Amino acid sequence: MVRTVFFVSESTGITAEAVGQSMLHQFDGVEFEKIYLPFVNTEEKAHKLLQRFVEIKEQSGTRPIVFATMADCEISKILRKGDCLYLEMFDTFSIILSEELGVEPIFKSGQSHGITDDYESRINSIHYAMDNDDGMRMDKFDKADVILVGVSRSGKTPTCLYLAMHFGLKAANYPLTPDDFEKGIMPEALKLQKHKLIGLTIEPKRLQQIREVRRSGSEYSSLKRCQTEVKMASAMFKKLNIDVLDTSEKSIEEIASRIVKTLNS
Amino acid sequence: MVRTVFFVSESTGITAEAVGQSMLHQFDGVEFEKIYLPFVNTEEKAHKLLQRFVEIKEQSGTRPIVFATMADCEISKILRKGDCLYLEMFDTFSIILSEELGVEPIFKSGQSHGITDDYESRINSIHYAMDNDDGMRMDKFDKADVILVGVSRSGKTPTCLYLAMHFGLKAANYPLTPDDFEKGIMPEALKLQKHKLIGLTIEPKRLQQIREVRRSGSEYSSLKRCQTEVKMASAMFKKLNIDVLDTSEKSIEEIASRIVKTLNS
Repeated sequence: MVRTVFFVSESTGITAEAVGQSMLHQFDGVEFEKIYLPFVNTEEKAHKLLQRFVEIKEQSGTRPIVFATMADCEISKILRKGDCLYLEMFDTFSIILSEELGVEPIFKSGQSHGITDDYESRINSIHYAMDNDDGMRMDKFDKADVILVGVSRSGKTPTCLYLAMHFGLKAANYPLTPDDFEKGIMPEALKLQKHKLIGLTIEPKRLQQIREVRRSGSEYSSLKRCQTEVKMASAMFKKLNIDVLDTSEKSIEEIASRIVKTLNS
Repeated sequence: MVRTVFFVSESTGITAEAVGQSMLHQFDGVEFEKIYLPFVNTEEKAHKLLQRFVEIKEQSGTRPIVFATMADCEISKILRKGDCLYLEMFDTFSIILSEELGVEPIFKSGQSHGITDDYESRINSIHYAMDNDDGMRMDKFDKADVILVGVSRSGKTPTCLYLAMHFGLKAANYPLTPDDFEKGIMPEALKLQKHKLIGLTIEPKRLQQIREVRRSGSEYSSLKRCQTEVKMASAMFKKLNIDVLDTSEKSIEEIASRIVKTLNS
């Protein structure tokens, strides 16, 4: 069974997509063809979409499923009449929240992150993460909210970017290298920031898989090398007594959320 | 009026936060104190949270608002009994969707992006964006899904990272420099990929603000320099006849969504 799913919004549709994906994830055994459709912001576009619903129904025999976040009621009304399962996220919760707060919703175009101070700080954090990736420089570690340490390809870079993008955190990272292992200690610049350090560890077999994609057949991606590096890194984490996260089975969202939780605790 | 809001999940809570933020954005005149609480995954943690609800009510006189995505029904049941406005996103839609699909929801821990092929491709795209940022190399432009072109600080880097992280797109970028303006043409490596190019433009005054933060008082951040660069970049975009997006009043989410829409059209 294949069902067509739309993520629709008069704005970016990122919320509709996030919720929709999470929901679909709850249903096994159904294949979904997903269509992401932001900026459905005129009645004309809404009517065109209705026509598309009809065609999908004719071709597949089933009506499409629509996850929508529509601040604009007129467009929402049009889509709701279409031959689809229309799931509007704002409607239900808006009414309940409005009653709770005693304030009318303003139905402004649905962006969760506008151009605000908070937004500027996120952008600055993204640039910080870029500039302080991979131990490229260590003189700005004092500005960091958190510094991730781990062997090459343990998940440091994507996690730092996610921390910057979603949580506005200044996240730097430092890759432990054979040179560090030989010395058996972390660089002084890192030890000075010990309270900001979080170690990332990973199953050697998983690390090997990831490195294999990058440099197939190399010594760098051999299981032996992966085992040795992970073991030595773990010993260094233990010596410094820093928090450690295993990234093997985790997505970057999950690693980042756990780091935020650690920082807040 | 200040209201305390929790984003709660037995997993990362990223969906609860996305929806919650969008919803709160609809209510002006209320100040929200937001608390992000992922991994509430034991009954003990849930009971502790109930106690916190009581304290908040006692201190502020109002009950907290809770946005939750709980795949685990037992924990959800506990929180629902608390003194709070409990808004559970999965409940409502799960039932409707289950009826539509004729499949029972599996209530698996709510991650929208697991460790799948799709996930691997997102990670690879993030590394691609890092390696191909700021015109650092141009020999991999043939691998790009999209290449953003624009003057320094027009929004290229954060947008590329967002495109990689959320849409799994391989996004490269190239900064137009005084050298390019002097020659009056884009480098050959870019022109070869003309069909992948999207130009980013920005209001000179806004650009000045952004550059001012980076290098205050410099010629680089003078209004005159910003005006000249933006004008010359626009002329180059026109000459090549590529799509152009104005980033002045847009968040990276919005710029990225518009780019995806352009690519799909």
